Amino acid sequence: MYRKEIKVLDCTIRDGGLMNKWQFSDEFVKGVYKACVDAGVDYFEIGYKSSEKAFSRTENGDWKFCDEASIRRIVGDNNTNTKIACLVDIGRIEFEDILPKSESLIDMMRVACYDYQIDKAIELAEHCMNKGYEATINLMAVSTVKEHALDEVLKDVAKCKVPIFYLVDSFGSMYCEDIQHLMKKYTEALPGKTIGFHGHNNMQLAFSNTIETIIQGANMLDGTILGIGRGAGNCTTELLLAFLKNPKYKIKPILEAIHNHLLPLSKKIDWGYHMPYMLSGATNEHPRTALKWMDEGKKDDVIGFFEELRKSKEELE
Amino acid sequence: MYRKEIKVLDCTIRDGGLMNKWQFSDEFVKGVYKACVDAGVDYFEIGYKSSEKAFSRTENGDWKFCDEASIRRIVGDNNTNTKIACLVDIGRIEFEDILPKSESLIDMMRVACYDYQIDKAIELAEHCMNKGYEATINLMAVSTVKEHALDEVLKDVAKCKVPIFYLVDSFGSMYCEDIQHLMKKYTEALPGKTIGFHGHNNMQLAFSNTIETIIQGANMLDGTILGIGRGAGNCTTELLLAFLKNPKYKIKPILEAIHNHLLPLSKKIDWGYHMPYMLSGATNEHPRTALKWMDEGKKDDVIGFFEELRKSKEELE
Repeated sequence: MYRKEIKVLDCTIRDGGLMNKWQFSDEFVKGVYKACVDAGVDYFEIGYKSSEKAFSRTENGDWKFCDEASIRRIVGDNNTNTKIACLVDIGRIEFEDILPKSESLIDMMRVACYDYQIDKAIELAEHCMNKGYEATINLMAVSTVKEHALDEVLKDVAKCKVPIFYLVDSFGSMYCEDIQHLMKKYTEALPGKTIGFHGHNNMQLAFSNTIETIIQGANMLDGTILGIGRGAGNCTTELLLAFLKNPKYKIKPILEAIHNHLLPLSKKIDWGYHMPYMLSGATNEHPRTALKWMDEGKKDDVIGFFEELRKSKEELE
Repeated sequence: MYRKEIKVLDCTIRDGGLMNKWQFSDEFVKGVYKACVDAGVDYFEIGYKSSEKAFSRTENGDWKFCDEASIRRIVGDNNTNTKIACLVDIGRIEFEDILPKSESLIDMMRVACYDYQIDKAIELAEHCMNKGYEATINLMAVSTVKEHALDEVLKDVAKCKVPIFYLVDSFGSMYCEDIQHLMKKYTEALPGKTIGFHGHNNMQLAFSNTIETIIQGANMLDGTILGIGRGAGNCTTELLLAFLKNPKYKIKPILEAIHNHLLPLSKKIDWGYHMPYMLSGATNEHPRTALKWMDEGKKDDVIGFFEELRKSKEELE
């Protein structure tokens, strides 16, 4: 599928960091950054931009904070065609933490929010735009949002000046019919805005759902190398680039990062297709129960997890 | 998706056996069989039905041959609602190897063929039907068949009495648009026949492609537990049953088989998402090069495989 408007954002470090509290070596982050630049990826999301007051520096690596000195250590002046993005969470950052764009290496701020936080998200995203950044709003966990509440959110977003709005399958619970329904809703409610997609792979549908959003008009697509990400992980950057067939994208640099960085890490961290994540996705459940189960070293206790989940999901048989 | 005509066929032993020459313990095969019966799976494909003359018994386990005594050891009289299926390859079986149905535990013979073998496949499948079996024809590697040759195949199939014809994504190279195109072609050319689907997971699309074929009218669906199968493996039976939401299907027995049998095996055999398989799928290449690469212990030499593949696929960058 070739469409010149399509942009790819790699969030290997940001979403992958959810699995190791962003404790990546500089060599790892530099390797992924270089792969994205060489592969022609449009945006490289290096982490969360958070207030120093919101999280502990001893527990969390640099990419939970993304101060300018840390970013510069990896990207220098970033004289490349790949822009730098950060995710910001409502309530984890103060307005004054956002530097004027002229003092920052960051190009794009992506504001993640739940439906009940949409006013704050618009305010923060517009604040970022006023400071000179590109901005997006990423509405999380939409699979649990009631239709009329979602309609209210979309009305507010339509009126704001933020140009990009993300469909996010936080729980990895969406089938293609859900994607079609929501993409239709989003595109109709938000004329003139770009729609993005960020999927999770609990049911091995992150890539196919990404393709479905492309068919439905999405032009901003998230991937991570080898699919690294919270729980089951994400749509893989390598599959996405192979599909897009845009001559500006190259696969080989991504394969090099897989060989040098992701495969070694995959021996230590268990993202991917595991039954606790699969069952969470299939029942539209937040992955926290599954993540806790995996953290407790019980990943192969499939029946135990099934029984645990069944306490709240009686439809499971 | 609930549609009462839909049937599920589990080919864990048959397709999974391609990875270990069908050297499964009886405990393993019994465990998978019991899981399929308890889960309400409609067909359990226990292996290939092959002539004793075609393959070596020392190299290959019982499920490459599927003689009646072997099958009886696992299923007894099979007084269950799950039917027993076998795959037969053209040229690997003699007509006289097919017993009358009254002397066999097998219910269904699936005839696999390439496009140039379609006459022989029809002859063999009709021979099986004449002996009292259900039969299907599974056209392999259709992603490499020219459109006019496929039209000829479909004309022949339309005229024969075999009631089930399979769309097979042998190389795991199909996107949803390919599925839509071929399903439309198959259903239009074969009125009155059931269309089946067997997908491979090289690009993590086996499950989503299966869903797409369901939307397009396929009613006979293959899966394997935990996706075990040649190379990247298959659509997983557990995802398929969870999706179908037919009350006759239960997930828990499949999870038990995953816990007791598939997870232990997955520590020894490397099916699934590996770069050599992914790159084969993305370039519509037979998986043999990737399988050889993996067999030689080079699965993490991603760049080496890329360069190897690039000798014949210059579009790779």
